[in-house]
Amino acid sequence: MAEPTKYLAFTHRLVMVGFGSIGQGVLPLIMRHLEIRPEQIQILCPDESGLAVAEEYGIGFRRVALTPDNYRAQLEPLLGPGDFLLNLSVDVSSVALFSFAAERGALYLDTCIEPWLGGYTDASAAPAERTNYALREKALEAGRKLGADAPTCVLTHGANPGLVSHFAKQALLDIARDTGTETGNPAGQAGWSDLARRLGVKVIHVAERDTQVPTTPKRPGEFVNTWSVDGFYSEGCQPAELGWGTHEKGLPADGRRHDSGSDAAIYLLRPGASTRVRTWTPLAGPINGFLITHNESISLADYLTVRDGGKAVYRPTVHYAYHPCDSAVLSVHELSGRQWQMQEAKRLIVDEVQPGGIDELGVLLCGHGRNAYWYGSQLSVDEARRLAPHNNATSLQVTIPVFAGLVWACENPKRGLVEPEQMDHERILEICRPYLGPVVGVYGDWTPLHRREELFAEDIDRDDPWQFKNIRVV
Amino acid sequence: MAEPTKYLAFTHRLVMVGFGSIGQGVLPLIMRHLEIRPEQIQILCPDESGLAVAEEYGIGFRRVALTPDNYRAQLEPLLGPGDFLLNLSVDVSSVALFSFAAERGALYLDTCIEPWLGGYTDASAAPAERTNYALREKALEAGRKLGADAPTCVLTHGANPGLVSHFAKQALLDIARDTGTETGNPAGQAGWSDLARRLGVKVIHVAERDTQVPTTPKRPGEFVNTWSVDGFYSEGCQPAELGWGTHEKGLPADGRRHDSGSDAAIYLLRPGASTRVRTWTPLAGPINGFLITHNESISLADYLTVRDGGKAVYRPTVHYAYHPCDSAVLSVHELSGRQWQMQEAKRLIVDEVQPGGIDELGVLLCGHGRNAYWYGSQLSVDEARRLAPHNNATSLQVTIPVFAGLVWACENPKRGLVEPEQMDHERILEICRPYLGPVVGVYGDWTPLHRREELFAEDIDRDDPWQFKNIRVV
Ligand SMILES: NC(=O)c1ccc[n+]([C@@H]2O[C@H](COP(=O)([O-])OP(=O)(O)OC[C@H]3O[C@@H](n4cnc5c(N)ncnc54)[C@H](O)[C@@H]3O)[C@@H](O)[C@H]2O)c1
Ligand SMILES: NC(=O)c1ccc[n+]([C@@H]2O[C@H](COP(=O)([O-])OP(=O)(O)OC[C@H]3O[C@@H](n4cnc5c(N)ncnc54)[C@H](O)[C@@H]3O)[C@@H](O)[C@H]2O)c1
Repeated sequence: MAEPTKYLAFTHRLVMVGFGSIGQGVLPLIMRHLEIRPEQIQILCPDESGLAVAEEYGIGFRRVALTPDNYRAQLEPLLGPGDFLLNLSVDVSSVALFSFAAERGALYLDTCIEPWLGGYTDASAAPAERTNYALREKALEAGRKLGADAPTCVLTHGANPGLVSHFAKQALLDIARDTGTETGNPAGQAGWSDLARRLGVKVIHVAERDTQVPTTPKRPGEFVNTWSVDGFYSEGCQPAELGWGTHEKGLPADGRRHDSGSDAAIYLLRPGASTRVRTWTPLAGPINGFLITHNESISLADYLTVRDGGKAVYRPTVHYAYHPCDSAVLSVHELSGRQWQMQEAKRLIVDEVQPGGIDELGVLLCGHGRNAYWYGSQLSVDEARRLAPHNNATSLQVTIPVFAGLVWACENPKRGLVEPEQMDHERILEICRPYLGPVVGVYGDWTPLHRREELFAEDIDRDDPWQFKNIRVV
Repeated sequence: MAEPTKYLAFTHRLVMVGFGSIGQGVLPLIMRHLEIRPEQIQILCPDESGLAVAEEYGIGFRRVALTPDNYRAQLEPLLGPGDFLLNLSVDVSSVALFSFAAERGALYLDTCIEPWLGGYTDASAAPAERTNYALREKALEAGRKLGADAPTCVLTHGANPGLVSHFAKQALLDIARDTGTETGNPAGQAGWSDLARRLGVKVIHVAERDTQVPTTPKRPGEFVNTWSVDGFYSEGCQPAELGWGTHEKGLPADGRRHDSGSDAAIYLLRPGASTRVRTWTPLAGPINGFLITHNESISLADYLTVRDGGKAVYRPTVHYAYHPCDSAVLSVHELSGRQWQMQEAKRLIVDEVQPGGIDELGVLLCGHGRNAYWYGSQLSVDEARRLAPHNNATSLQVTIPVFAGLVWACENPKRGLVEPEQMDHERILEICRPYLGPVVGVYGDWTPLHRREELFAEDIDRDDPWQFKNIRVV
């Protein structure tokens, strides 16, 4: 193997909050691709399941859970100007952490906008308050307070949210190329949204099919997943959410708009983990996925909105269509039968994944001149293992953009709060590509009307295949 | 092991049509518990996957598929007075076969009312015509033509339909005992329906949770099941159907009544395999099952109807709530994503089942003085294997009632067409019990309102937990 690229000489301190599947998976990438010494890194994490990995790399590990009461005291001695706060935890508020990092002059990155413990499933809060939309509005507001040239805080830069927004830009360029459309070399929001509009993109799915299989089958009463069980549980119990396209003819009966903010997305009055949608990936073909809420459904829809005098005149519908690994499908099915009471046992499978599985993760852009275009990564667990230790296919698709985002933030240290869409997709994809396995763009003739109504009449819109009502599985 | 009971000296010929998981599983029971010689038995079956089992027992195997054109010619030389036609096939019309058997003076048994090939999924037929209700009405009509003292034709006598109707009677007696209710020693339809009414049974689920796991996990593009893949596919694609209780306040929006016949059941304008219901079993707790149509949903509801001047004044809602083995749940999920186009590969797991799985199959009677009572079999695959060769837990729960029905028919040879409810439940349970593993009756405080609306408001009926709208998962 050639000497690994060293993207940066990192001379400051790096604090990692949380050290689960993503923390453990990103550490080898950091050690390999930064000039950095173990002494510069400190892990804060309440559970010691990652301790052996930390020790393998000689990293300090402090067993502590951050809370609203202790986070300032815990982080203050560890963070100063130029240092980096990498938040890879669950149950620790992103807003609290990035605000504090900026206050200390430190850079920041996370992979999802996390509230403090229980925020996602606080039954006393109205559904609207439990949405990612609400979390994002609060984060953006806190970001505005920091100012535009504050230390860079990268929000939600994993695989999805994160990498997929860069995939979407690449996909737009590919479709432009293949339909003979001028790209206009889009640089900022206005350029990209205009390109999406001119291409006629009506729908963007984050279309994912994970075929990884554990060596021991899921047992009754056990939630099995290829990444954070807690993370998936929390987002699965949030209301389903989707960026709401301007081509949509009518709001679903259980759909609601928000009173304030970007208005780029709606939510449904039901958990995403019980809401299924039709989608398509090149390897899997037509599949049903779960409409799990994700920040990119809102941020990408918002970013691709064309406004005319404040009024949205173009926006695609954007949402996740997630077919997790089969064991997680079963876990969700069981969870639903339990009325969303978490199973007694949780199992996050990394080393315990059988050979052969693939996490096929990409964006599916629909409704343009070439119908549907999927662009993304088809990374197998076997290739992931060859590429980096302590990863499965799913985690590596997250950890390499985490790493790339960290590099980008260091290269662009005074950008204040940014979402993935505001970053340079070429730079990120350049850093990520060697770790993504086959990265392919494939056109498909699939639509959600494909083979419908063969046995039963359905309430569908034959005039426009790309209406959400056609996508949704009822 | 004690010398096995020989229930009968069987002196006639036995023709088995179809020799899949059920045929192969029942043969050892027949050889063990009947006085019979291999030469008396003939198998007719188009595929040779069961050939080795037939040869093991020295049974003649003719490779032939019965069709509307050839069945008379094929069967005529094999069937005469006192002979037995055991129909354990898919895609061979039950009505054609039992009518012909009766014509020849032969006895008959099947495990489901099967139409000729394609009948279940004939898209040119209206949903009402693809129901089990329609199949049953046709079968009953053909039965009436035979007359009441025709050779006995036992319709639908497997586990479910079949055994579960006997479980239901036993459960009614148990609940009567435990609530201090006079049973009135019910003998016929009037007695049993009156007992159910007096107990206040509103809902009967056939509540099944199969936890058997294959040694090799389900692969993408493969349908895996513990019994006939074709059989499950066909019934899963039929409209969901349920015996419709008199306590139900309103028809579901997608529910339809039939124009003629018993009026005991309704159907939904959607496949059962896409229709989920809440249920409960003692080992699994609260689970979601599929509302797959089954004959017992109709026949048991019909049997337990109390009429007053032709008008139904009491009837429980009766339906299947089937949580198949996890691999089959995944198969159904995948199939739904494929818009019900059958997967490329099918795998029926019998020998390939890992140790430890249990098929928990019983009836759940709800709404009476003790809330909910589950009565049924908790047979593990390990025990099934100890009890009989060529069976898993699921098949043994089917094959022993097939065998018991055969014995009962021979003991009662002039009863014309009978459904399980018209048979003697004590005799059947007596023959079956040694093969069912733990047979238990358990009360539960579960209702479908259990833990509802913790995160989202739902359209539910708080006044009567046992409304179907509360049971259904939307
Ligand atoms: N954007 C993406 O593509 C993507 C993908 C996967 C995961 N994620 C997110 O990344 C985060 C980590 O995922 P994971 O798979 O590593 O999860 P994980 O469950 O494996 O690990 C979570 C870690 O957080 C720690 N933690 C819990 N409470 C804490 C507290 N109070 N203070 C500090 N640490 C605490 C846990 O001990 C654990 O080490 C989650 O928020 C998840 O939603 C994002
Ligand atoms: N009542 C119950 O509890 C219950 C349970 C399981 C199965 N069943 C029913 O029993 C039947 C058999 O189930 P299985 O699991 O053995 O199914 P299987 O798929 O294993 O076997 C079906 C058999 O039918 C044969 N067959 C197909 N077409 C035929 C034709 N034209 N002529 C003759 N034979 C033909 C096949 O070759 C095969 O041997 C199915 O109808 C199924 O629905 C009922």
